[in-house]
Amino acid sequence: MSTIEPWQLIAAEKRSLRDQALMPYFADDVHLRTERVRNVAGRSRIEPQTAQSITELDSIEELHARLSRGDYTAEDVTLAYIKRATIAHQVTNAITEVIFEDAIKQARALDETFKQTKKTKGPLHGIPVTLKDQFNVKGYDTTLGYVGRSFSPATEDATLVQILKNLGAIVIAKTNLPQSIMWCETDNPLFGLTVNPRDSKFTPGGSTGGESALLALQASILGFGTDIGGSVRIPQHMAGLYGLKPSSARLPYHGVPVSTEGQEHVPSSVGPMARSLSSTIYISKLLANSRPWTRDPRCAPLPWRDELFQDPQSRPLVIGLILDDGVVKPHPPITRALLQLSAALRAAGHEVVPWSTEGHHECIEIMDAFYTVDGGEDIRRGVLAGGEPFIPHVEKLVNRGQPISVYEYWQLNKRKFAAQKRYLDQWNAAVGPETGRVVDVLLAPTMPHVAVPHRCCRWVGYTKVWNFLDYTALTLPAGEVCEEDRIDGVPHKPRNELDEWNWGLYDLETMKGHPVNLQIVGRKLEEEKVLGAAVVIENIIHGLPN
Amino acid sequence: MSTIEPWQLIAAEKRSLRDQALMPYFADDVHLRTERVRNVAGRSRIEPQTAQSITELDSIEELHARLSRGDYTAEDVTLAYIKRATIAHQVTNAITEVIFEDAIKQARALDETFKQTKKTKGPLHGIPVTLKDQFNVKGYDTTLGYVGRSFSPATEDATLVQILKNLGAIVIAKTNLPQSIMWCETDNPLFGLTVNPRDSKFTPGGSTGGESALLALQASILGFGTDIGGSVRIPQHMAGLYGLKPSSARLPYHGVPVSTEGQEHVPSSVGPMARSLSSTIYISKLLANSRPWTRDPRCAPLPWRDELFQDPQSRPLVIGLILDDGVVKPHPPITRALLQLSAALRAAGHEVVPWSTEGHHECIEIMDAFYTVDGGEDIRRGVLAGGEPFIPHVEKLVNRGQPISVYEYWQLNKRKFAAQKRYLDQWNAAVGPETGRVVDVLLAPTMPHVAVPHRCCRWVGYTKVWNFLDYTALTLPAGEVCEEDRIDGVPHKPRNELDEWNWGLYDLETMKGHPVNLQIVGRKLEEEKVLGAAVVIENIIHGLPN
Repeated sequence: MSTIEPWQLIAAEKRSLRDQALMPYFADDVHLRTERVRNVAGRSRIEPQTAQSITELDSIEELHARLSRGDYTAEDVTLAYIKRATIAHQVTNAITEVIFEDAIKQARALDETFKQTKKTKGPLHGIPVTLKDQFNVKGYDTTLGYVGRSFSPATEDATLVQILKNLGAIVIAKTNLPQSIMWCETDNPLFGLTVNPRDSKFTPGGSTGGESALLALQASILGFGTDIGGSVRIPQHMAGLYGLKPSSARLPYHGVPVSTEGQEHVPSSVGPMARSLSSTIYISKLLANSRPWTRDPRCAPLPWRDELFQDPQSRPLVIGLILDDGVVKPHPPITRALLQLSAALRAAGHEVVPWSTEGHHECIEIMDAFYTVDGGEDIRRGVLAGGEPFIPHVEKLVNRGQPISVYEYWQLNKRKFAAQKRYLDQWNAAVGPETGRVVDVLLAPTMPHVAVPHRCCRWVGYTKVWNFLDYTALTLPAGEVCEEDRIDGVPHKPRNELDEWNWGLYDLETMKGHPVNLQIVGRKLEEEKVLGAAVVIENIIHGLPN
Repeated sequence: MSTIEPWQLIAAEKRSLRDQALMPYFADDVHLRTERVRNVAGRSRIEPQTAQSITELDSIEELHARLSRGDYTAEDVTLAYIKRATIAHQVTNAITEVIFEDAIKQARALDETFKQTKKTKGPLHGIPVTLKDQFNVKGYDTTLGYVGRSFSPATEDATLVQILKNLGAIVIAKTNLPQSIMWCETDNPLFGLTVNPRDSKFTPGGSTGGESALLALQASILGFGTDIGGSVRIPQHMAGLYGLKPSSARLPYHGVPVSTEGQEHVPSSVGPMARSLSSTIYISKLLANSRPWTRDPRCAPLPWRDELFQDPQSRPLVIGLILDDGVVKPHPPITRALLQLSAALRAAGHEVVPWSTEGHHECIEIMDAFYTVDGGEDIRRGVLAGGEPFIPHVEKLVNRGQPISVYEYWQLNKRKFAAQKRYLDQWNAAVGPETGRVVDVLLAPTMPHVAVPHRCCRWVGYTKVWNFLDYTALTLPAGEVCEEDRIDGVPHKPRNELDEWNWGLYDLETMKGHPVNLQIVGRKLEEEKVLGAAVVIENIIHGLPN
């Protein structure tokens, strides 16, 4: 005999309230929208064409230009995105908090002021934004996927949300994430599983999986997440989108609750996600120039440094190339993309030098030790507060190790500082043989695979090492899986269990057409440089055959 | 029957080796140099007059200019400082490691190159530097005042030392500090007690007490220390010198061992100490422009921002005034200096607004909780490794509390972040009523008293709150204790034990002539702004009668 547990009632109520808020916008043809598509945006198509056209613009700057000219009202834009977000939710289960009514009110207020003054509120006037369910939005829950955090609405907007609203942005929804946040997929007992918009059997990645689902379906134009091991980058990698993980001191974290909050050993970063590089640059510049350090004591006083952004666009780059971290060999599409791009970069006059990942092993070893320093207490408390079951990944995490003492914890931090110093020394010593210049950025896989079926992600070594170092990392699209990626010849001989697992996942038939993303990495607080290098690299990518 | 313990043998050997290295430069008239003087520099007078003149220059820039012109050789300068440093040590017990022979060799090498090229090595060519015995200098011990760290010479220079040497500086000695570093006086069983150069019965302050003794006696022109609660500022406050505690991400800490190393809750800062504001600015600019972030992963990528330095010199300032933190009321000389200066600032057109210290109580409460999170294990191990006795202050510290769990430690960090955010909000909300501008800097006491007898310092609330907030703070001289500071009228009624203790220390007769310093405080990483404001404020101070 099964009984309904209290947590299930809470979850049912949360989902029911969410669905009620979505209902006015529900599409009734969702069953006709196939569960496995390559033209992902078509899956969330809306009527009328004007609304569809609004949401087809990938560039925030362009959308803002049209709003400024009065081509669209903020309400037009908001409603179009609300419609598509609802369909996107219907097909992927991406949304947790529905902020539609408030969004429409804000849009109307913006339109009213615009009508009177002929001026936009700011450079994000009328731009819809979606947020991982970690950012406090006044009046709405911030669940982090924990049942126990339900029905405790935030009393204040997060600092980032305040800044976005001041610039004119309109928050329309909050999105799903995994229980504990510490996973590269998106599932929790409160809101359930979010699926990949290209294939429901596939994960959208995580932890910011709800965002990537919306962005891929043109149901959001700007999202924000947090990244402590790849959580902004992994879902955008799987979706063929742009995800920037700045260094942790760049964007404001105040008002963004997180698992293991209070730890400072591997700082989590707030990062933007978007559908174009230009949008990523546009928002990064705006946020830097909003002087977040005057509002969040953890931010470094760095306005947008345009000279750092322009410099890599003005000369040949020196690029360190990571093909393989020696632990888990990337699947053929990733390797192919890296090799093709490297060749094209060299042909365009840039220097591409091999980069040793030898130091990564120690970084990851220390990082893994950090995961269990509290014996899983923080996450365990988070789950136990609501009484829901642990998802298997989280259960393993919280039971992995005994807590250590604060003194031992400090010794681990000392090892961290030493490893960070060694990595920086390695970087400084790496020069392009032709120019003698120090390496500008690294080019690397984001993951050793493209999108994969649910519960198959295991190795995030290509992303998390940059969190450990607190470096800047951007994932960006570089093509898609194609026939060329068929394995023929000698099969890869697995090096270890993880590598074997990963290699076993490779399936050209189901993966064909999925996006292939790559990662560009710069040192600490080099966001402008990474974005400047990305402009150069993306131009080369666009010249590649695909 | 007393036995000699092993630690005593080690300490005796360390001191004996030090004394052997000093001996060639010993002055034989030290017994004639009185133990209580107000003209402190006269106490370390050397012959011949040229050498004396060299060491009388307070300005690094001026000394460098003379070296560049060939007025002095680097060897002249090094030898002059070696002589004075030796006398300074004879009268205060300030030196731990003697680096004279290496220094002379370096000076000769610089002179040789200069003779050939007519060019200096860099903007610190031939400038002598002294360092708190925490900075690794290759081939010399870094004891931190612990017996157990004796005879383990560093294998590499600290990053800061590398930078200084690259700029042409010459390290001549390392200086004394208290056991554990966590004290505002200077005493340890390994090297013993350092005394105030103006009065041997008085403390020079701490933890960077050896530096202030040398600087006050014109036996150093540039020193470096670390500051986690006031350790750079307190000794310079007592000596009438300049001590800058930058935010922790500004100057490189790599290669600088410290007590409770690995903790990140209240970061310790490396800071310069000097005999003039111009020297402090000169070195701060040089170090920022040496790009320390490319060598130390903890540094923020901030070159010298000259616009932030010039701006406060170009317009009326808004200054928040702290007269009293409500816990320990400053002695009359401090209060008088603050009031006179405020009046003069107002007369010169600046806005001076009262500043509430209400938030300090919570900051200090959290900070005090942090002191015992490891149950004193780190410091206890440091002392037990050598077997020497605990000094009473340290014994109290290590036995003050039980260790807490890592999870509880993170909760304390959350309280810290919240308190830091509240303080920043308070700052942003504080505007000058005339200009409507946000407060630029705060003007505050450094301590509630000037120099005091040994083992009498108890309240560092005026300095340590800025470490908790990781703000920038500079201590600078603002006069001296004088007849005007005699208490007449109603005596102060103590508020608490600490206040009563402090008030009991006040003794105009022994304190008269001791320097009165004040503190200028800016927000996180606002070093240029604080130094720019200091230029303005110092000009006003120089116009005051004293």
